[in-house]
Amino acid sequence: MHSYTLQQLASIVEVDYKGNPNQVITNISTLKLANKTDLSFFCDPRLMPDLLTTKAGAIIVTAEMAQKTDNNTLISANPYALYARLTHLFYNEPDPLYMIHPSACIASSVKLPESVSIGANVVIEDNVTIGKHSVIGAGCYIGHNVSIGKRCQLYPNVSLYYDTKLDDYVTLHSGAVIGADGFGYAPENDQWIKIVQLGAVRIGFDVEIGANTCIDRGAITDTIIEDGVKIDNLVQIAHNVRVGENTAIAGCVGIAGSTSIGENCQIGGGASINGHITLADGVIVAGNAMVTKSIAKAGVYSSGTGLQTNRDWRRSVVRFRQLDDMAKRIQSLEKKITELSKTKIQEEVL
Amino acid sequence: MHSYTLQQLASIVEVDYKGNPNQVITNISTLKLANKTDLSFFCDPRLMPDLLTTKAGAIIVTAEMAQKTDNNTLISANPYALYARLTHLFYNEPDPLYMIHPSACIASSVKLPESVSIGANVVIEDNVTIGKHSVIGAGCYIGHNVSIGKRCQLYPNVSLYYDTKLDDYVTLHSGAVIGADGFGYAPENDQWIKIVQLGAVRIGFDVEIGANTCIDRGAITDTIIEDGVKIDNLVQIAHNVRVGENTAIAGCVGIAGSTSIGENCQIGGGASINGHITLADGVIVAGNAMVTKSIAKAGVYSSGTGLQTNRDWRRSVVRFRQLDDMAKRIQSLEKKITELSKTKIQEEVL
Amino acid sequence: MHSYTLQQLASIVEVDYKGNPNQVITNISTLKLANKTDLSFFCDPRLMPDLLTTKAGAIIVTAEMAQKTDNNTLISANPYALYARLTHLFYNEPDPLYMIHPSACIASSVKLPESVSIGANVVIEDNVTIGKHSVIGAGCYIGHNVSIGKRCQLYPNVSLYYDTKLDDYVTLHSGAVIGADGFGYAPENDQWIKIVQLGAVRIGFDVEIGANTCIDRGAITDTIIEDGVKIDNLVQIAHNVRVGENTAIAGCVGIAGSTSIGENCQIGGGASINGHITLADGVIVAGNAMVTKSIAKAGVYSSGTGLQTNRDWRRSVVRFRQLDDMAKRIQSLEKKITELSKTKIQEEVL
Repeated sequence: MHSYTLQQLASIVEVDYKGNPNQVITNISTLKLANKTDLSFFCDPRLMPDLLTTKAGAIIVTAEMAQKTDNNTLISANPYALYARLTHLFYNEPDPLYMIHPSACIASSVKLPESVSIGANVVIEDNVTIGKHSVIGAGCYIGHNVSIGKRCQLYPNVSLYYDTKLDDYVTLHSGAVIGADGFGYAPENDQWIKIVQLGAVRIGFDVEIGANTCIDRGAITDTIIEDGVKIDNLVQIAHNVRVGENTAIAGCVGIAGSTSIGENCQIGGGASINGHITLADGVIVAGNAMVTKSIAKAGVYSSGTGLQTNRDWRRSVVRFRQLDDMAKRIQSLEKKITELSKTKIQEEVL
Repeated sequence: MHSYTLQQLASIVEVDYKGNPNQVITNISTLKLANKTDLSFFCDPRLMPDLLTTKAGAIIVTAEMAQKTDNNTLISANPYALYARLTHLFYNEPDPLYMIHPSACIASSVKLPESVSIGANVVIEDNVTIGKHSVIGAGCYIGHNVSIGKRCQLYPNVSLYYDTKLDDYVTLHSGAVIGADGFGYAPENDQWIKIVQLGAVRIGFDVEIGANTCIDRGAITDTIIEDGVKIDNLVQIAHNVRVGENTAIAGCVGIAGSTSIGENCQIGGGASINGHITLADGVIVAGNAMVTKSIAKAGVYSSGTGLQTNRDWRRSVVRFRQLDDMAKRIQSLEKKITELSKTKIQEEVL
Repeated sequence: MHSYTLQQLASIVEVDYKGNPNQVITNISTLKLANKTDLSFFCDPRLMPDLLTTKAGAIIVTAEMAQKTDNNTLISANPYALYARLTHLFYNEPDPLYMIHPSACIASSVKLPESVSIGANVVIEDNVTIGKHSVIGAGCYIGHNVSIGKRCQLYPNVSLYYDTKLDDYVTLHSGAVIGADGFGYAPENDQWIKIVQLGAVRIGFDVEIGANTCIDRGAITDTIIEDGVKIDNLVQIAHNVRVGENTAIAGCVGIAGSTSIGENCQIGGGASINGHITLADGVIVAGNAMVTKSIAKAGVYSSGTGLQTNRDWRRSVVRFRQLDDMAKRIQSLEKKITELSKTKIQEEVL
């Protein structure tokens, strides 16, 4: 059970506050659901009605909003970011034991720092290095020559193939598979010849990777996820992809081989990105969009058709197939009209 | 090897039958493939030819069809549902051992009922409760404070994060990950600040969840899967989603954060559903559809373009980009025509 | 560290070479990145500039190109396939130990050949057979009655449900789940009655299956993956699907139940394929395409709209909904024009 006074919270995150310094805060909640010992936050103008009726013990608001409410407030130019920082004080996750579970199978060549936590049934192969305060969840597999930085957290049942490199503060959720073979085969007489994937995967500082997400090892050079990248669940990142700093990729996205995604991009859920293309920094791809070509300029990009009732949609789809024909008929109509108008004018002249 | 007489089957499921009470049935098959000791079923009129030629020892049919065939029959108003119920008699899955495997790592605080089955290398953390007759497959990870109801089945290598709650009769297939962090970050100076996910996941009665499916824990309140929901493989359900009773979700669907899906909905495979929207009860979303807005009315909804040869498709896509221009040109054509027609009439008047 | 002379490489793969027989080759790289002991390859005419400037110790080229360069060369009619074959000589993956790890839990009924490698915490149930030289990675679960052929490789944390059959030379990557229940339920009074899945999964010779891919067991008959099929990561293959010989399926594809895919097909990443349909041999489905109907003829098929800026796209989407109306207005314009032209002509005649 967490408990802070308003004053304590303000001093921990070094912001100003307004109201009762001794107001006790035990949890975080929404404006609507908050009770009198909950902290809440106001970022979305549409929630103004909730702000006026909330029972929250304190609210994170901008200096301007702080004038307009009698509630206890924590004041920030970016209330949503302050909320994010404060969630770390109300963490419910049980602490790791910082011990090595006796059931773990660790290659004799491996030397681990005292501060790591190795869960039950973890398997660590030869030549692995793990940094201080890193937590390896139960059932994880750490392949040969893997290096894991400081303060990394692997949740249970993660698989890291040989030669994978994680920088510090990397978080991998359960079922993530890093370093499996890229999908590479050469066709020869109706058969596929396997291309052994000689590269590896390198993951930067402060990267978080979601559950059951897959990042394949490179064919020749490495697949690279740069610092600060955030990747959601069930994402497929193929061999030799590079994802630039601080880019965020939502769930169910697929990125095909050798594509380069810029920095500070946002890729919406379910988007498919073609191989061997480049997305510029700051590109935002809408959910479910199909990206077939490179994108040279920052901006928001979309594809697909809007949702319709199945009945109407069937009509639209038939016409979609006829689009080229329709366009040509419009052209010929335009020609005929012009001719007709001409003759009209001549008559009037006569 | 299963074996029943026609009479036995009829009495077990309490339906009428027609034909030889002593007909032996050892398995279930399709009309086409059935041999003389197989039970089959007729639900699809297109399979009438198979019905006339089947070698099945007995067939599940409606009372009306029973008149039209000389085969042995089991009679039901809903033959497909009766087939479904009867499959449970021909189950081939090996029974669990209902023992605790010595290799399982179970926190000392945990008290398990005698009737549970705990597989090899299962890890069970502090404060976990598991109901009678539940089966936990090999290599599953059960996090702190998880509660699992009665007669649940977890197939091997499932991961349940801390605080996850499963009601009775819940089935989770291998690789499912329940309770991983929702994808929540607040942007601040080109960086992402992690929002600690303080909620959990609650899963209702008689829910089945497919292999490698992910259901994220809530940001503040819980992510909720209501009673009777069926979810296929490789589905992503983001934080704070609510899925209503008896809704079925096919494979590869992605549902973004805070969206509410109604009861008795059907979501087709590969569909992408936007965040912060609401789907009414009884909504059917076609496979691969992109749902960007709330749907207020039950019905079937679709999006996307039909499949074309790549050559024709390239033409359609070019025109899709020109659609707005095409529409405007049609308008101006209509104006010109009206003018021309007017002047025509005047001439005739003169 | 691998090391071969040019002459050795030529003789191993039985091709001609040109240049210094004693040139030492220690690795494979791209034309651009290669250093003087790297082997590279030239398949893409667009890389001609790199060919002219590469520092590679030798290059795989066609006989024709061999005339045009002074580099050391290995000569092949299909340089890309020769590159693929040669990657196998520069393999970095640590060898398995070909031992049975003491932590593995193996049912007493199971007899294993001496040459297999069974990793830590592997669970092998009753009645399993495994062929010579097969490698089962750490944490894999091998269900009852599974049969695994010779020289198969299961990477860590693969789950094989009961009755799954793998032929020889099958590779399964981490997190793959083979034989989970197909998604089958019969509706009865707003509820779903589970259809027990009585079939299994059969996987052919030289099949490779990617990380976290799911292949469901059949409802009555088996789900079948034929010889030489290659499947990427995060692919969903539903019950009773059949995938024909040497077909390749890229990442994030979903194939719904009872669909039959022909031989030598290529399914692009993120494609969704409907259930109960048939794709002919040699069909190529573009990435992210939606296949709703059977395809009878080999060829390349696509769907979807091109990517646009969100602003332009919004306009196109509105018009997509109006397509049927637009088409009808074009028709009526064409009628009116014809009438006007007629009267025009009459006037001229008068």
